[in-house]
Amino acid sequence: MNRKMVFFVFGRIGQTVGALLLLPAIVALIYGEMLQMQSFIAVAVGAIALGVLISRCSRTENKVIYAKEGFAIVSLAWIGMSAVGALPFVISGEIPSYIDAVFETVSGFTTTGASILSDVEAMSKSMLFWRSFTHWVGGMGVLVFVMAIVSNMTDRSIHLMRAEMPGPVVGKLVPRGKDTAKILYMIYIVMTFVQIILLSLGDMDLFESIVHTFGTAGTGGFGIKSLSIGAYSDYSQMVIAVFMMLFGINFNLYFLLIIGRIKTVLKSTELWAYLALAAAAVIAITLNLLPQYESFGAALKDSFFQTSSVMTTTGYSTANFDLWPSLSKGILMLLMCIGSCAGSTAGGLKVSRVVLLFKLVLGEIKRMLHPRAVTSVKFEGKAVDKQTLNSVLIYFAVYVFCVIAAFLAISFEPFSFETNFSAVIATFNNIGPGFGNVGPMGSFADYSAFSKLVFSFAMLLGRLEIFPLVIALSPSTWNKSRA
Amino acid sequence: MNRKMVFFVFGRIGQTVGALLLLPAIVALIYGEMLQMQSFIAVAVGAIALGVLISRCSRTENKVIYAKEGFAIVSLAWIGMSAVGALPFVISGEIPSYIDAVFETVSGFTTTGASILSDVEAMSKSMLFWRSFTHWVGGMGVLVFVMAIVSNMTDRSIHLMRAEMPGPVVGKLVPRGKDTAKILYMIYIVMTFVQIILLSLGDMDLFESIVHTFGTAGTGGFGIKSLSIGAYSDYSQMVIAVFMMLFGINFNLYFLLIIGRIKTVLKSTELWAYLALAAAAVIAITLNLLPQYESFGAALKDSFFQTSSVMTTTGYSTANFDLWPSLSKGILMLLMCIGSCAGSTAGGLKVSRVVLLFKLVLGEIKRMLHPRAVTSVKFEGKAVDKQTLNSVLIYFAVYVFCVIAAFLAISFEPFSFETNFSAVIATFNNIGPGFGNVGPMGSFADYSAFSKLVFSFAMLLGRLEIFPLVIALSPSTWNKSRA
Repeated sequence: MNRKMVFFVFGRIGQTVGALLLLPAIVALIYGEMLQMQSFIAVAVGAIALGVLISRCSRTENKVIYAKEGFAIVSLAWIGMSAVGALPFVISGEIPSYIDAVFETVSGFTTTGASILSDVEAMSKSMLFWRSFTHWVGGMGVLVFVMAIVSNMTDRSIHLMRAEMPGPVVGKLVPRGKDTAKILYMIYIVMTFVQIILLSLGDMDLFESIVHTFGTAGTGGFGIKSLSIGAYSDYSQMVIAVFMMLFGINFNLYFLLIIGRIKTVLKSTELWAYLALAAAAVIAITLNLLPQYESFGAALKDSFFQTSSVMTTTGYSTANFDLWPSLSKGILMLLMCIGSCAGSTAGGLKVSRVVLLFKLVLGEIKRMLHPRAVTSVKFEGKAVDKQTLNSVLIYFAVYVFCVIAAFLAISFEPFSFETNFSAVIATFNNIGPGFGNVGPMGSFADYSAFSKLVFSFAMLLGRLEIFPLVIALSPSTWNKSRA
Repeated sequence: MNRKMVFFVFGRIGQTVGALLLLPAIVALIYGEMLQMQSFIAVAVGAIALGVLISRCSRTENKVIYAKEGFAIVSLAWIGMSAVGALPFVISGEIPSYIDAVFETVSGFTTTGASILSDVEAMSKSMLFWRSFTHWVGGMGVLVFVMAIVSNMTDRSIHLMRAEMPGPVVGKLVPRGKDTAKILYMIYIVMTFVQIILLSLGDMDLFESIVHTFGTAGTGGFGIKSLSIGAYSDYSQMVIAVFMMLFGINFNLYFLLIIGRIKTVLKSTELWAYLALAAAAVIAITLNLLPQYESFGAALKDSFFQTSSVMTTTGYSTANFDLWPSLSKGILMLLMCIGSCAGSTAGGLKVSRVVLLFKLVLGEIKRMLHPRAVTSVKFEGKAVDKQTLNSVLIYFAVYVFCVIAAFLAISFEPFSFETNFSAVIATFNNIGPGFGNVGPMGSFADYSAFSKLVFSFAMLLGRLEIFPLVIALSPSTWNKSRA
């Protein structure tokens, strides 16, 4: 374990988070929220100072990073970011409990959008901004961001990307990891600007347009109204619904689009599976909703918005879907688990994994019938190697184990099976709202401090796809000797 | 596809079921239940006649059976048995609806023990006997039974055993499949007799001892009292609790015990994992129950009984565990999914699969840290081949898919999330009772006919471990040409 390099990068992350905190400080200044501004600046200065100190003390010639270091850095970074990012909430007194503030910040960075706030409209503008900004930062990944801006940090940046980027296979778009990170962020920033402009053309003011775009881009889902997106016009709802779907697509496809490889994009198995799944869900839910709605159009609109929101693991709502019929709720819960495309800002299992799982099952049936036949699984036009397939299967098993473990850990809570189970699904897959007490009109406020920590851990596990965190937390990882 | 041979064996199964129906007919005669006796005899005669006819018409020189034929025979047999076995309930008028009767019979043969009866004590003795007898027959497998008694039916009997016996790996104890089947049934019969004798020494009469032993041996769980086993003495409860655990152990271990290989038995990974898991669950549930119970002993007794019952997927109860604290219910639901040992009469995923899944996850972590290291998974002292590991992983994925599909299929029902979800878990894993409306004091009576068919299918899928049924139901399996 190259501990020095781990702490060196960790220091850099501290400085980055400190710098990011200056943005909400500016917002606080604009809206004259002086107490809030002081909180942000105090934490920012502290984070930057500590970050510089840590990086200075850990300066090393050996900049090599292996898988182990990648997992450790990413895990430390995300835990550290959440611990620091929670402080302004506490210092300003807007979220008095530190555990509550950590929950809210983890929920932000992991782009979950689950909240312990029972009255979000009582919050100050700068805090709402910070909450939503964490979504935007967490969506594309903080490490990727640091890689994009810090020059020559390491030659082995792929191990960092691999640990932070979701999906079964992580590759570089261009030979250098740093350039890949830059391209991803450029696409991300352009799409963000387009959405802000489109939203401000409707009934949202600039502030509303920005925070809701942050929530959409990171597929996070923190809103600033009790009614979430239901408080805005059909136009705003549709812009957000469409952009949620767009941010749920693998960013590699946008890169391919830019360099003119349109045919490759149109042949993407995952893209078509993602769109087909969404379309099927929208149709099924619309039909299921019809008896509750006045018109087909109204049912279709809410069905489309909610499918898009839940499948991209955003969590915005335009209707209280907790009151929808059981079949619709069942479909939504399934979509929560599937999630969107690998390499997007969304959570869940990822469509590519689900497609591969289905192909593996079909292959197994073939093998049972013809034991000697050679079967291979193809994806995106290429045969997938055995190791990747194996990892997908094992990931699925660990995924289910984690859901069960988290559910058991919080099962002493006095809530219904539906509330507890959907709370686990909604945090672990980084959606936000679930059903019952944690439905779109509810919150996680009534859970105990212990459960809030469990959920925070579940959100981090889900965002980092389990293994990095597990590996970083096992003591043997921190041994000095190299294996 | 060797269709002739498939139908030839199917005819033999028909004759066997017909013969088995004569046993409850004798019980009906003893208790003077004439209408019931006529029903049993009528169906028995019909089944035997039809069976002989089918076998005659399908006589063939080509007795070769491949995997495909094995799956087809087993699936056809189980569906046929259930369709025929349900008839006496309908003809005698004790279960007027044929769909209800099919549900009850499938629940019997698959050793589930889920019931649509709201007043089981109103049933006649011979029908109660038949219900429980289906558990005993289904527990060890009907095909295995036919193999044991019919001489030289086929040379490739391993394909039949593989399709019907649960667990990740099915091997023969002795070179000939027929002899393996005989040994398994001998062990089964001896253990059955011992339990009947032990139970009749307590407060159960001979009839009660026999039917409850059938339910225990098959790990089925049909009772004859509204209070299930709660209606009997502590002695009877303990005998049943211990025997449930015994019938949840891989029968291969009993064979090894008989031939003196005690050391091999004591080294069995699955056995120790099974016992450790049960012990951990008993302790956790006992501690969780303490506030609700007068004494530690009473809590321990109910905790042990219920853990044994649920883990072996039997489903007997001595307490209304639906009223237990959420943590205990969560643990029970987890045990429902895990089940007992491969090669036992119990359902669920099987402990061996769960152990292999955990070992695979640990191996994956190792591989992520040291990509070039060669990892192998050991089980029962031997390295497990890649193909088996792959199959275990894929089975787990299909298992979860089936749970989700069944849950969605019945989600239009007006019951709570807990009721619907636990109903799926309880039928698919062949337990019987779940929570809420389908708890130990409830029944499946209020579900619609459609849902009862879904549950019946889920029970068959669970008992036959999914693939045989799926393969048998795909039209391509029935093509005449051989692949």
